[in-house]
Amino acid sequence: MIAELISVGTEILLGNIVNTNSAYLSEMCAMLGLSLYYQTVVGDNEKRLEETMRMAWERSDVIILTGGLGPTRDDLTKEVAARLLNRELKEDPHTRSRIESFLKAYRKNHAGSKITDNNWKQALVPAGAIVLDNENGTAPGLILEEGQKRMILLPGPPGEMIPLFRDKVFPYLRDKQPEVIYSQMVKICGIGESQVETEIQDLIKAQGNPTIAPYAKPGEVHLRITAKADSEKAAKKLTKPLLRELKARFGNHIYSTEEDKTLEEAVVELLKVKKMTLSLVESCTGGALAARIVNVPGASEVFGSGFVTYSNKAKRKHVLVKKSTLKTEGAVSEKAAREMAKGGRYVSGADVCVSVTGFAGPDGGTKEKPVGTVFVGCCIEGETEVCECHFQGSRESIRSQAVVYALTFLRTCMIEGLKKKEK
Amino acid sequence: MIAELISVGTEILLGNIVNTNSAYLSEMCAMLGLSLYYQTVVGDNEKRLEETMRMAWERSDVIILTGGLGPTRDDLTKEVAARLLNRELKEDPHTRSRIESFLKAYRKNHAGSKITDNNWKQALVPAGAIVLDNENGTAPGLILEEGQKRMILLPGPPGEMIPLFRDKVFPYLRDKQPEVIYSQMVKICGIGESQVETEIQDLIKAQGNPTIAPYAKPGEVHLRITAKADSEKAAKKLTKPLLRELKARFGNHIYSTEEDKTLEEAVVELLKVKKMTLSLVESCTGGALAARIVNVPGASEVFGSGFVTYSNKAKRKHVLVKKSTLKTEGAVSEKAAREMAKGGRYVSGADVCVSVTGFAGPDGGTKEKPVGTVFVGCCIEGETEVCECHFQGSRESIRSQAVVYALTFLRTCMIEGLKKKEK
Repeated sequence: MIAELISVGTEILLGNIVNTNSAYLSEMCAMLGLSLYYQTVVGDNEKRLEETMRMAWERSDVIILTGGLGPTRDDLTKEVAARLLNRELKEDPHTRSRIESFLKAYRKNHAGSKITDNNWKQALVPAGAIVLDNENGTAPGLILEEGQKRMILLPGPPGEMIPLFRDKVFPYLRDKQPEVIYSQMVKICGIGESQVETEIQDLIKAQGNPTIAPYAKPGEVHLRITAKADSEKAAKKLTKPLLRELKARFGNHIYSTEEDKTLEEAVVELLKVKKMTLSLVESCTGGALAARIVNVPGASEVFGSGFVTYSNKAKRKHVLVKKSTLKTEGAVSEKAAREMAKGGRYVSGADVCVSVTGFAGPDGGTKEKPVGTVFVGCCIEGETEVCECHFQGSRESIRSQAVVYALTFLRTCMIEGLKKKEK
Repeated sequence: MIAELISVGTEILLGNIVNTNSAYLSEMCAMLGLSLYYQTVVGDNEKRLEETMRMAWERSDVIILTGGLGPTRDDLTKEVAARLLNRELKEDPHTRSRIESFLKAYRKNHAGSKITDNNWKQALVPAGAIVLDNENGTAPGLILEEGQKRMILLPGPPGEMIPLFRDKVFPYLRDKQPEVIYSQMVKICGIGESQVETEIQDLIKAQGNPTIAPYAKPGEVHLRITAKADSEKAAKKLTKPLLRELKARFGNHIYSTEEDKTLEEAVVELLKVKKMTLSLVESCTGGALAARIVNVPGASEVFGSGFVTYSNKAKRKHVLVKKSTLKTEGAVSEKAAREMAKGGRYVSGADVCVSVTGFAGPDGGTKEKPVGTVFVGCCIEGETEVCECHFQGSRESIRSQAVVYALTFLRTCMIEGLKKKEK
């Protein structure tokens, strides 16, 4: 089946946002074994949107549209799709009542805000459409079928689009495929993208069925093995030798072979297995590391408290870093990271404490410790190890690299133990 | 002038990489006052590439292509462009000698690598093309002019494309533009997208030059006013009446009229103006609020410490929430939020403290306080106000809404003062 993506929104054409939806949906299409030939972005313009949709409808079997389903006059995707496929728009009572409760909840938080009439536009549905309830917003997803062709309309915000696609569209499309696709994920941390690619070059060259494809994520590399066969069992069997080979090559750097498992989930699971509790002391990452841990539902079992000690005063007062350390070595130093980890563990009473301190820029930094220098400490049951990192890029990029590194470092320390004993 | 972008590369269609080139080039086109109507991604397939380029050439004045200029057989962009415009491909001696020296330098750093014959393909240039020397790679940029139309070919890697565009294509296109564009941003928080849209419906209906366009961001709405005129001064002047009108309508909800200013920057600035320091106590947001504040370079001037008190024990131990409060009211309660804000302020010594506690789900929550219930507290110089919110959506979505709400609430409390005096 030939697939095609259309993203609708003038904000993408103006460069206000990066089109991450297309990257996500492209990966999903590859996973589903769909041949994706085109991605198009078109603005909130009726004529151009209609032309783009008509052309896609002629040349492709599955058209996935994102955006343009909102309540405003700019939002035209559903209207144009209905006209193109000669469907009438009718109010769907189920969707109307869902919108009603969603907006009531919204109003509770936003005193003075009104439910405006244009919201009900989102309850209009083309005749015969399959309606996909949106748990994270007001505009539902819609599937329009016509013979062997399908037009799928999804809201633009990734927080609404991704859950809708994952939970409703993906299973729907999978069931339409003649062959069964089995896809096996291998998630790697602690090795750079180009090194991973070099180490699997022979496997990529020799690939057939299954295929192997690398996806670079911030601080991680994901390898996807995909096989086609008549049954899931047969397809799964095809992926096995390659999975074994990757495990042999990357060992402990593989933190998961599960599709949806995140690095923070792997870390929280490891803490649970080891029956250890965690605390965090963050300077330059400013709470972003704790926020990653709290992403994991049930993190409370292993994580109780974190400290954002952004000032020197806070480092001294809340996690007992020595005044002399800050004076002689500075807040961005091996010694400060060590004391932060030790102090955080002591103050919180947790088994493990990870600390992060560094220069994220654009200002700060010294000749010896330029912007991008980050110290990550890990204290496990009284022993502490500190690692010095040098990251490149913007303030934002340095901070997010530091967060991923801290998670990787914590994982390594827990698996391999601390190498350097504390003096 | 109507512009159009075409990205060439199967790796984008497979979702292996995010198409950041298009976001960059779109923003540049907007800055140049070009009307960008389409972005297309097409794979390394001759037939589909040719169709896409032919259609673009018919409907647009400026076509910017990225990718497909490399040395391999897959790289077809230049060949297809030459055929489409009936130009012969000829070796450009200047480009050949540039490639030669580039590859020699590369070989010095990569022992064992050979200069393969296919590299010379990159020295072939369509007759009459303007050649743009690439300082960061072997494939030059190319401009093909035909009457008032232009086809611009750039290499795909952003590290080569961006410098080429910035230094050579941008000035080239700017000189071709008859009018100057001026764009004025208005950033609004604390009101939903559809309400903003309703309140400016008359302005949207009446728009001409300048235009006005809304962009929904998580928890915010951005309005962009754009005017065209003979000079920047004249264009800027055209935007003034609309800017005044929006200020009159949205008042304090406008947190900035600067293009690049974020909500957290506006909050940090306000703290600086009021000479106040901030501390934060987070439960369900788990440090994400602190991380937003630390996004701002120079936040250290107003922000010293934050506490992630995820467990009840941490709430009691680190920010002095009463045992009885947690027992009788629970950790997700008006009273707990109040004590967290007061305690955090006391312990940190800051002037202002914001607290967040809630049920982010998927588990937790009670009949009276379902998942999505979040209390946000703000303590300013001893007085505390607490707001109860009800958010919808996934754990991730509830947490990110809570973060934006907390920033907005802090801003409102600082601007308007606390309404409810503490009993």
